[in-house]
Amino acid sequence: MRLTVADLAGALGARFEGDGSLPVLRAAEPGRAGPDDLAIALEPRFAEGLSKGQARAALLWDGAEWQGLGLKAAVFMPGTRHAMARLTQALDRGPAIAPGIHPSAVIEPGAQIGEGAAIGPFVVIGAGARIGAGARIAAHVTIAEDVEIGPEALIHPGVRIGARVRIGARFIAQPGAVIGADGFSFIPPERGQADAPPPVRVHSLGSVRIGDDVEIGALSAVDRGTLRDTEIGNGTKIDNQVQVGHNVQIGQNCLVCGQAGIGGSARIGDRVILGGRAAVNDNIFVGDDVIAAGAAQLFTNAPAGRILMGSPAMKSDQQMEQLRTLRRLPRLAKKVDQMQADLARLLERAGLPPARGKGEE
Amino acid sequence: MRLTVADLAGALGARFEGDGSLPVLRAAEPGRAGPDDLAIALEPRFAEGLSKGQARAALLWDGAEWQGLGLKAAVFMPGTRHAMARLTQALDRGPAIAPGIHPSAVIEPGAQIGEGAAIGPFVVIGAGARIGAGARIAAHVTIAEDVEIGPEALIHPGVRIGARVRIGARFIAQPGAVIGADGFSFIPPERGQADAPPPVRVHSLGSVRIGDDVEIGALSAVDRGTLRDTEIGNGTKIDNQVQVGHNVQIGQNCLVCGQAGIGGSARIGDRVILGGRAAVNDNIFVGDDVIAAGAAQLFTNAPAGRILMGSPAMKSDQQMEQLRTLRRLPRLAKKVDQMQADLARLLERAGLPPARGKGEE
Amino acid sequence: MRLTVADLAGALGARFEGDGSLPVLRAAEPGRAGPDDLAIALEPRFAEGLSKGQARAALLWDGAEWQGLGLKAAVFMPGTRHAMARLTQALDRGPAIAPGIHPSAVIEPGAQIGEGAAIGPFVVIGAGARIGAGARIAAHVTIAEDVEIGPEALIHPGVRIGARVRIGARFIAQPGAVIGADGFSFIPPERGQADAPPPVRVHSLGSVRIGDDVEIGALSAVDRGTLRDTEIGNGTKIDNQVQVGHNVQIGQNCLVCGQAGIGGSARIGDRVILGGRAAVNDNIFVGDDVIAAGAAQLFTNAPAGRILMGSPAMKSDQQMEQLRTLRRLPRLAKKVDQMQADLARLLERAGLPPARGKGEE
Repeated sequence: MRLTVADLAGALGARFEGDGSLPVLRAAEPGRAGPDDLAIALEPRFAEGLSKGQARAALLWDGAEWQGLGLKAAVFMPGTRHAMARLTQALDRGPAIAPGIHPSAVIEPGAQIGEGAAIGPFVVIGAGARIGAGARIAAHVTIAEDVEIGPEALIHPGVRIGARVRIGARFIAQPGAVIGADGFSFIPPERGQADAPPPVRVHSLGSVRIGDDVEIGALSAVDRGTLRDTEIGNGTKIDNQVQVGHNVQIGQNCLVCGQAGIGGSARIGDRVILGGRAAVNDNIFVGDDVIAAGAAQLFTNAPAGRILMGSPAMKSDQQMEQLRTLRRLPRLAKKVDQMQADLARLLERAGLPPARGKGEE
Repeated sequence: MRLTVADLAGALGARFEGDGSLPVLRAAEPGRAGPDDLAIALEPRFAEGLSKGQARAALLWDGAEWQGLGLKAAVFMPGTRHAMARLTQALDRGPAIAPGIHPSAVIEPGAQIGEGAAIGPFVVIGAGARIGAGARIAAHVTIAEDVEIGPEALIHPGVRIGARVRIGARFIAQPGAVIGADGFSFIPPERGQADAPPPVRVHSLGSVRIGDDVEIGALSAVDRGTLRDTEIGNGTKIDNQVQVGHNVQIGQNCLVCGQAGIGGSARIGDRVILGGRAAVNDNIFVGDDVIAAGAAQLFTNAPAGRILMGSPAMKSDQQMEQLRTLRRLPRLAKKVDQMQADLARLLERAGLPPARGKGEE
Repeated sequence: MRLTVADLAGALGARFEGDGSLPVLRAAEPGRAGPDDLAIALEPRFAEGLSKGQARAALLWDGAEWQGLGLKAAVFMPGTRHAMARLTQALDRGPAIAPGIHPSAVIEPGAQIGEGAAIGPFVVIGAGARIGAGARIAAHVTIAEDVEIGPEALIHPGVRIGARVRIGARFIAQPGAVIGADGFSFIPPERGQADAPPPVRVHSLGSVRIGDDVEIGALSAVDRGTLRDTEIGNGTKIDNQVQVGHNVQIGQNCLVCGQAGIGGSARIGDRVILGGRAAVNDNIFVGDDVIAAGAAQLFTNAPAGRILMGSPAMKSDQQMEQLRTLRRLPRLAKKVDQMQADLARLLERAGLPPARGKGEE
């Protein structure tokens, strides 16, 4: 698949100028681009890098004078971030998974594999599972019995999908993700009882239900529900090493960043953004459009639209004020000491005893 | 396996009334139950949901008048949480792993597999390993040389168990758990030394020793010890994405919730509960019956029975007071400013100079 | 491989006294050592344990009088920590991986495997991959197309290495590590837009580049870059469950402890130590020789050499003072109340009104 500048512009619906026959091997930062790379310089401040690299073609900001930048071709596409998204999509080769079912794969009786699927070595697909058309399933993936996965899934190596999990269209799972492990639900031991029996296990009879256009990151875990299914809505994207507890309900188009954790039975609205390592306590409710900053820890319900920071999380302006006050605290303590000395002299001169001794210090 | 209301009540040691021949396909929340599901309504507040669902049979609170709820049968079992535990256990089908050893599995010479084991596709069991009777080992599990595992183990897909790990009876490991990775122990580099050699590695010669009735969650890691074994006591349950460092000793019947971390050589007593994402520092001691709230970070030893919150963790009442005081801090600062103004007027009238200028602001 | 005291001392470049023909089966803590174990007692305070164990030989502190400790042989090696490192290295058998390529392994056409490699069951190595000499690759490892790995790698079970990742010499990866998952980069949804399309994905076209002598812990994830490669420098060691985001650059000889997280595009200098669960925000810079204590969360750039604690992280002495002041805060509030009472009496006697009422409480 040899791509040219003209091909790429066509694929992107973008405009190009100059030599459209130049090859595009990959995209690169301007300063690191080789002669067959497309340099990405979507703002004028990246122009300088072009002279350090060897690019002959570049994706440029609107209005850039490409000839003056030493280039032989330029691609123009308005909207910086969307340009990046479409460009990277066009150039992403994805993992190499040979078409068809690898002879080593184990497909249990009754499993249905959709047309055009590519299934890698040592994949196991359980009885009664239904995999949609166009699926790409990499090596070492385990898909248990009665799982349903919609069309055009891309499942990277070593993903584990447990029994009866249902997933919509265009699913992406990064390596090592675990969907449908048992929930963690135990009756705690009696305190102080040395010979207590082990904590009693509440089993997970539910499964996991995932909408369309969902992505789950590497080594993230989504537990099955106790009686009902744990749910993740359409369009929600989850990063690496995220924990989603049993019975959790996540709405649509949310972004959940790396190492975030969502405790059992929490409910998360639509378009919620949880920053890196943000945490949502068991059983609470997080409204639509809430943004939790990195490392924010939500212990109580969060109304729709709120922007939260810190631990325990509070409104971001409140949190900023608290941090400011905290920093001033040593000076405040010193001021109070000085005031106390002044007060002592005034009391003495007035012949009055202090209120209750001199405080407790 | 077609279960009826009477069968289920018998299996639970519970009492039923009404039509015992009704089928029980699965358990469900009242509002989502189909006609062949057993609705779970263990408290009167769940009664309302019954009319929304289609259940004909339900597990109800003691004394419930089931006929008035539109049901044809009812099961009664006192003790809400234990009822849930036993019910879910009775209905949990567990993962489908065909009896016997899958032909693709690699069992190295000298490994012993107990009677009645079910071993899935692509499992690898190392030389000299001894697997107890009744083990269910799902696809893609790696068990290294000289591992010992007691009877009735359930090991989900993709679990890794390292060399010489010893595990007791009724072990459960969720997908992707790693038991017996090397500990992280390095001699740090000299500060400021640009050409320093890489940090020097202390190898892990110990292994991991796990008691009876232990569960390890998805994608959790338990490292091997340096000279002795890392130890986890009987009945301790560990959730997903938990890190247990080298040389750690965890007592019996503990509950360690998701994303918690236990640093190297820490010692944890019996019946300790670590909430979600709680952390225990390297080398410290946590006494019996300690409860660490979600996200609590223990940097110092914790005496038995203590309830801890926050970071750094402190006694929960102390932590609550600190949070309250923090919230009042801006008002306190304002009050001090006003008092300072009053004081200035009094000092002026008394002809006295302030103690040391006017503080430092 | 039957090792004697004399063999071991020779291998360590250490001195021994007494019966060099005694066998050394393994190293052990003094109180747990069997008759064929080498007890490790590198400081006099460990001498007491020797009488509880059964060791006949021990690695002792310099100048120890071993005959008086009931031993038949002693090994001496100055430098406690380096002695541990070298001793454990000498005795570490490592995982058992049979020499050669296991017949079940799938080696795609065009992959090159260096001399002396040991490749375990069910390993998959993609087209065009180049694996250096002496590699030990355990069961269930996936290595994608065009990966390059230098000589003497040790890759534990279930590791996933994505396409085009390049890794230097003497690489160690613990079980379940994921190198080269896609970065998490999405254009967030419009707030409040109920029918918004799903967040738009920016694909990861870069890969991951790792230097010599690097170790990656169990279940850690290193994401690929967007246009350039994510980079980890020579000698850097990463513990379990660590997240390294896309485009991150980590320098040489760093130590990154368990559950730490490094946000996308962060740059980390040389010899940086991130304690357990430390976090580095997206896009920030952390200078050489920075030490971040356990659970420290860095939201802003950190100059070289700084020692940081807390969240948000600040200089350790500043953080300690803030914690001290916080603990004194309830007493401060009480003192201010008493001062306010005194002040009220003085104002009353002077016939002055308080500044603005009595504060706001």
